[in-house]
Amino acid sequence: MTLCALPGIPVVRPGDDLPRMILEALARAGERLQEGDILSVTSKIVSKAEGRIVRLAEVVPSERALDLSRQTGKDARLVELNLRESVEISRTAPNIMVTRHRLGFVSANAGIDQSNVDGTDETVLLLPVDPDESARRIRAALQAAAKVRIGVLITDSHGRPFRLGNVGVAIGVAGFPAVVDLRGGVDMFGRVLRVSVQGYADMVASAVCLLTGEGAEGLPVVLVRGLRYPDIDGRASELNRPPETSLYR
Amino acid sequence: MTLCALPGIPVVRPGDDLPRMILEALARAGERLQEGDILSVTSKIVSKAEGRIVRLAEVVPSERALDLSRQTGKDARLVELNLRESVEISRTAPNIMVTRHRLGFVSANAGIDQSNVDGTDETVLLLPVDPDESARRIRAALQAAAKVRIGVLITDSHGRPFRLGNVGVAIGVAGFPAVVDLRGGVDMFGRVLRVSVQGYADMVASAVCLLTGEGAEGLPVVLVRGLRYPDIDGRASELNRPPETSLYR
Repeated sequence: MTLCALPGIPVVRPGDDLPRMILEALARAGERLQEGDILSVTSKIVSKAEGRIVRLAEVVPSERALDLSRQTGKDARLVELNLRESVEISRTAPNIMVTRHRLGFVSANAGIDQSNVDGTDETVLLLPVDPDESARRIRAALQAAAKVRIGVLITDSHGRPFRLGNVGVAIGVAGFPAVVDLRGGVDMFGRVLRVSVQGYADMVASAVCLLTGEGAEGLPVVLVRGLRYPDIDGRASELNRPPETSLYR
Repeated sequence: MTLCALPGIPVVRPGDDLPRMILEALARAGERLQEGDILSVTSKIVSKAEGRIVRLAEVVPSERALDLSRQTGKDARLVELNLRESVEISRTAPNIMVTRHRLGFVSANAGIDQSNVDGTDETVLLLPVDPDESARRIRAALQAAAKVRIGVLITDSHGRPFRLGNVGVAIGVAGFPAVVDLRGGVDMFGRVLRVSVQGYADMVASAVCLLTGEGAEGLPVVLVRGLRYPDIDGRASELNRPPETSLYR
């Protein structure tokens, strides 16, 4: 498996044609998409291209947001955006809000990005409206140009309840598996594997995040080559553990 | 970044010299360790080499284990091993025991491996006694032979409270960072990054697990090349979120 971050992706602005920018970066790098490649893009530049930028000055906090702002010490306008992007509050603590996002995952700050938006503290970035669909659109455009079948991954990074440090996660998947179910397969002694569901796209996202790093808009596109995966057109939403099967709330 | 699984690692038995087996596999693959490489090994073969094999027939369950076995439906001897390997029970449910392992992380089944041990259901494998130290020993032996500085990673795979599917995690780290703290750095607009601690070794472990897969002993050693990381000699134990700073128990 090789991972290659594509240099020279320009700063993305609302309305930009991401597939075109990616194809141009590939051409400059002397690369050509091959069958089975996974093209990974950070949620940050997908959000920017989709115009998901919000000026905090234009956000009017609700009563509930003002209340939670007093509890957490967080900017009431940010709390308001957190609430709008979430379906359930999981935990609050000083300067922390952990929620179940409308997209189904549990994360801090509802995936709202305060860095690298336009160089001020007054503008933030929401996640794409439907990143699985964004991945499908990007995939369709890249496949039409390259005439090969590829996967597309949209990454974000999340903290974890029991472990320190953020890791890459998949928030958009198209053309490759989000989860791989190995149950029913056999191990090298012929013993049936009992519990072996892999968070496949999350592992690809973590691999990619080793190259993109945090908060860096410089290397938002990574080409992943050489993985063999089942022919499954997954969705990142499959990676969300349904609340009713979770032992933690 | 390139990841290459080394073929031809034989089935590991207690007392085997893992560094020698790794060096031989490298030689057969025509590879030579280079400065900055990370050599990744699954916990399964480290445990086997260290003789961490337990015959269930020799495990006498305590009263508490019998009680938890009735609650969960799990084999009382397995529950007994779970308890011996853990410092705290986090959750129990039918056929599930989630504990804080004596090594500090929260996981299902205390990292006890029931597959690929010797082809029977009667033998299980405990995690290495001190995988950070195991990583140091393997590193020292490989460095002495190869005369270059490398990192060594010991991987396992864990489920996650809020996401489906197992992902690779680091349970032993030597010679490279477990966590990378980017706080205080600046983004491309010069804005100071506020929350940017990366679970670095966990992301490497997830990348590696895309190649080793689940339950497979066939490809337990992966060579990771081309990562640039700070010169920090980390330990996987740094990745455990201290219980007192966790919002979940």
